[in-house]
Amino acid sequence: MSSYDDQSAVSVLGLGPMGRALAAAFLDSGLRTTVWNRTPGRAEELTARGATTAPTAAEAARASALTVVCVVNYDASDAILREEEVTDALKGRTVVNLSADTPGRARDTGAWADQHGVGYLDGAIMTPATTIGTPDAVFLHSGPRELYERHRPVLDALGGTHTHLGEDIGRAAAYDIALLDIFWTAMAGYAHALAVARAEGITGRELAPFAQGIAAILPPLIEQFAADADDGTYSGDLNPITSAASSMAHIVHASEAHGIDASVLRAAEGQARRVIALGHATDGFMRVTDLLTRH
Amino acid sequence: MSSYDDQSAVSVLGLGPMGRALAAAFLDSGLRTTVWNRTPGRAEELTARGATTAPTAAEAARASALTVVCVVNYDASDAILREEEVTDALKGRTVVNLSADTPGRARDTGAWADQHGVGYLDGAIMTPATTIGTPDAVFLHSGPRELYERHRPVLDALGGTHTHLGEDIGRAAAYDIALLDIFWTAMAGYAHALAVARAEGITGRELAPFAQGIAAILPPLIEQFAADADDGTYSGDLNPITSAASSMAHIVHASEAHGIDASVLRAAEGQARRVIALGHATDGFMRVTDLLTRH
Repeated sequence: MSSYDDQSAVSVLGLGPMGRALAAAFLDSGLRTTVWNRTPGRAEELTARGATTAPTAAEAARASALTVVCVVNYDASDAILREEEVTDALKGRTVVNLSADTPGRARDTGAWADQHGVGYLDGAIMTPATTIGTPDAVFLHSGPRELYERHRPVLDALGGTHTHLGEDIGRAAAYDIALLDIFWTAMAGYAHALAVARAEGITGRELAPFAQGIAAILPPLIEQFAADADDGTYSGDLNPITSAASSMAHIVHASEAHGIDASVLRAAEGQARRVIALGHATDGFMRVTDLLTRH
Repeated sequence: MSSYDDQSAVSVLGLGPMGRALAAAFLDSGLRTTVWNRTPGRAEELTARGATTAPTAAEAARASALTVVCVVNYDASDAILREEEVTDALKGRTVVNLSADTPGRARDTGAWADQHGVGYLDGAIMTPATTIGTPDAVFLHSGPRELYERHRPVLDALGGTHTHLGEDIGRAAAYDIALLDIFWTAMAGYAHALAVARAEGITGRELAPFAQGIAAILPPLIEQFAADADDGTYSGDLNPITSAASSMAHIVHASEAHGIDASVLRAAEGQARRVIALGHATDGFMRVTDLLTRH
């Protein structure tokens, strides 16, 4: 086995909470793990557990056939990877970029990697840092399948499930964007709901069990609405969009009556009202998907 | 047992999808069920299953000790209940209003009911019409506990779990508003995510299993963030709000690059940016709850 295919070593660039969790999982499965972070002082615990701290990103890249990058976004990962000495070190090796950004940025970095003879996979981590190394972790990957298969044994050390979504290098980022869209919009709704509840004298702990009940009804709706979106059928038989708009208006009024900003839900209500104005009052709320995509 | 305490009969005013589901569940459990709807022609199936159709709301109200109202909002329920003949018919009887509206409207109708000698409970249905009569249904109630306990046997015919939240008549509506806030905001996020995915060549059916994975990570976060909101602790150790704002910006840019309106998430990102500007960059995203409530 050439050093470029060495499955016993891995390097991690970026030691934020997620990067540290990745490095710890690699260490736990017995891989020789080299770590680097732009700001020093993040590696103490990892070093104590057996990691090697590289003084530069280039040295970290040279230490392993596979380098995992996990920084805040692609501005940050480009600043590391496109530095000449680092690019030279990565030639003929493989980078898995687990930083989050747009599909366009992932494709741009994929093209750069091709030009420089760097093997490149783009990935996304869909679960919190605490899940890394456990069965609950969820990783999405895209890029050359051959590269993915070659490095799969090292990636498997991170635990959880790994899915290769296709050769289009931007595909993992596209899934990531869509899934984070759901996550962060839902979190914005929850933060707002806690504010409304508080104004009504309801504590977070009182609301939480029922909020968990709301989360529990989502999976079958997610499946049904996905099929509706694919097929262009948005039945409002059980819950027409007029009823959704009416609910949203109640929430907006109740929160604004307490002086609570309702701009997030106001924007969603506006989309529902536009669907109704366009003549789709008997459809379900999810027809908003078509409103957003058809011009 | 006086006719006012008769536990074998119930009336349902309003035969939308939810009202029909309620009436069907009452019929299924053998109750004498009288139904009425402002627009005729909604009761055929229920009549075939044994329901009695009342020609007026007042006659429906006179037919049972308990009348359940389920219409689109309190404008609609007030238009029915506050009609003189109906109010007279309800005197000494009990109304459970399962229509959705704001806590303020529920309290206003509660005061009207007190003035007219009408027993009044306010309720909210937290699950889709398809759950009615099944163990999955979730009902919230508020108002006089004695009334609730008296009519509990009839309400139990609707299946699922029933929770009495307190004597404040507005409390069920307050929970309802907060929980629908989560639900509709999350749905707005999902509709948007499906549009972004579609623009990236990802079908709804491809996205759905991963979207269900996002729903699956919510329950523990809901519990933790509720405690954070109660205690005023919003740790950003694992995911600071700067990172959330960065994710949101990626989503906004990626969707606007496809010409997709991102106003919902833009509003949420604006709240995150305000929290950061106020000096809380190392807190978690949920500190938005405090931003929304502290003036």
